[in-house]
Amino acid sequence: MFKISPLVTALALTCSISVASAWETLPTEAPAPADNATTAEKVAVGQMLYHDPRLSSTGTVSCASCHNTMLGGEDNRPNSMGVNGQTGGRSAPTVWNSAFNKVQFWDGRAASLEDQAAGPVTNPIEMGMKSWDDVVARLKVIEGYQQAFEKAFGKDAISKDNTTKAIAAYERTLITPNSPYDKYVGGDKSALTAQQIRGMEKVAELGCTACHSGPAFNGAGMFQKFPVIGNSYFEAQYHFKKDKGLAEVSKHPADTNMWKVPTLRNIALTAPYFHNGSIKTLEQAVTLMAQLQLGKDLSKDEVADIVAFLNGLTGEFPKQKMPALPATPGTTFN
Amino acid sequence: MFKISPLVTALALTCSISVASAWETLPTEAPAPADNATTAEKVAVGQMLYHDPRLSSTGTVSCASCHNTMLGGEDNRPNSMGVNGQTGGRSAPTVWNSAFNKVQFWDGRAASLEDQAAGPVTNPIEMGMKSWDDVVARLKVIEGYQQAFEKAFGKDAISKDNTTKAIAAYERTLITPNSPYDKYVGGDKSALTAQQIRGMEKVAELGCTACHSGPAFNGAGMFQKFPVIGNSYFEAQYHFKKDKGLAEVSKHPADTNMWKVPTLRNIALTAPYFHNGSIKTLEQAVTLMAQLQLGKDLSKDEVADIVAFLNGLTGEFPKQKMPALPATPGTTFN
Repeated sequence: MFKISPLVTALALTCSISVASAWETLPTEAPAPADNATTAEKVAVGQMLYHDPRLSSTGTVSCASCHNTMLGGEDNRPNSMGVNGQTGGRSAPTVWNSAFNKVQFWDGRAASLEDQAAGPVTNPIEMGMKSWDDVVARLKVIEGYQQAFEKAFGKDAISKDNTTKAIAAYERTLITPNSPYDKYVGGDKSALTAQQIRGMEKVAELGCTACHSGPAFNGAGMFQKFPVIGNSYFEAQYHFKKDKGLAEVSKHPADTNMWKVPTLRNIALTAPYFHNGSIKTLEQAVTLMAQLQLGKDLSKDEVADIVAFLNGLTGEFPKQKMPALPATPGTTFN
Repeated sequence: MFKISPLVTALALTCSISVASAWETLPTEAPAPADNATTAEKVAVGQMLYHDPRLSSTGTVSCASCHNTMLGGEDNRPNSMGVNGQTGGRSAPTVWNSAFNKVQFWDGRAASLEDQAAGPVTNPIEMGMKSWDDVVARLKVIEGYQQAFEKAFGKDAISKDNTTKAIAAYERTLITPNSPYDKYVGGDKSALTAQQIRGMEKVAELGCTACHSGPAFNGAGMFQKFPVIGNSYFEAQYHFKKDKGLAEVSKHPADTNMWKVPTLRNIALTAPYFHNGSIKTLEQAVTLMAQLQLGKDLSKDEVADIVAFLNGLTGEFPKQKMPALPATPGTTFN
């Protein structure tokens, strides 16, 4: 089901917030919905499913192909490459800390990680499965999945609902705490350099954190217009407005170019930037955000300070085991 | 450099070998060449490189994409899918136990794992990099690789040579010992079922192990013609002869349809079968091998027994950690 969060708001972009009270560290555990408590068994099968390319029509694309858990949780491409080399128009958001997003996808069209996980599998240019019935039929053939689902959910438990629940449960473990920023806010004043602290102060002073607020710097489900300030020069180069964002799904003219505020956590690892991945470097992304959202031209030093601070939002990545995917002995889907 | 092993021979296919002396267990360590001793540091950087899609032009294809270390060491596809959805004509061989192949690739054109690793990266339909200079230039930009190479090889060590050495060192750790077969040969007579033992005896009696010999059942670098027995009916269906095998590289008519004998280790996990992946099931592969190589029609029970035995060649997969790939903070190659 498609739901739009009531948090679609138009905060004053120029508001400045109190530095002292605003900085929050990242929680080390993510909340789970009442009907999908995180358990080790769900996480185990979810990790397998997340990395299994057999959830795609060609057997070549897994969730991890575009949201790579060995990298910054995405693919460092302007857009992702799905089955048969197809590409879409948006840049893959990071899976790291996505548990702290109130809504998922760039346009926020999924209300939960569970809802999100259901989408790409049957998207013809992403994982290309014809239907979830086909996905479930595949999984039921794989004895190792029968056992893993039984451990997580009980007997005969392979279904679309439990598949997306398991993937979401796994994703809730993909948290990157203890960034230099978190250590600094937690009291270790040597965790950030002087330049990073200048950048942090500048970010607050400019009002970046009015939208990129909260422990994940993601506005807790807030939507914002991007770009705020029209400019035909930039538009000709980067085509930011071509994709209507939330309006593509809601069909409301007022939602044109409205986007979920994306997290700044691990932003240094997720180039290229913006919804269409048209901006290759973090320097340019910071420069453009100030121009297009705030109408400000930052100095080279200010940009460098902010970029240094943003590098301080790179967290510690949990050590993961590589899942062994259960086999279909003596046969194949492809 | 391209070298053909002197082991290209034409063994009598009908020769039967002594069962008692022929069965060997898989070594738990693979020999390394004199100039590339296996070290933990090389294996660590090799594991990262092996799983890094940034070794491809699009940033979407790593060694592991087609030789999947979470599955049976390949992709369970008739052919693999390289950059931009391109496909070739051959089925990806498994990386598991490839350290025990005397030569690499289906046509044996690489004399070592190091030589093999150099190939796909610049193949336009596989990983699509323009040149190894471009690969080395990319790796040099990544600070984490500078450090990892330094630990493994010393200062300023990023080069084509060391990249392929590291990948090969990692691949030499991808060994799957302790299959039911190994346990049985090692003295645990309950490790194989009665049906599997019948299949094992049938395999020896038929002479399968004349070619699929040695601990890895791979003929230790032997080449053989496939198919031996021409049959226009099968050819029309499966096009086995279309690909000339060794002759495609050697250009010698005598090498037409000659292939490196592939391992039978973990064969149950590597469907579909044969060089062009045209055979979907292990049952059919066994049936056809008897017809096309030995001129024998096996009964349904004989096929079932052999398939049961081949399932007993599935080994224990080493537990691996998932590598964290070093970043390019604030920028990207794609």
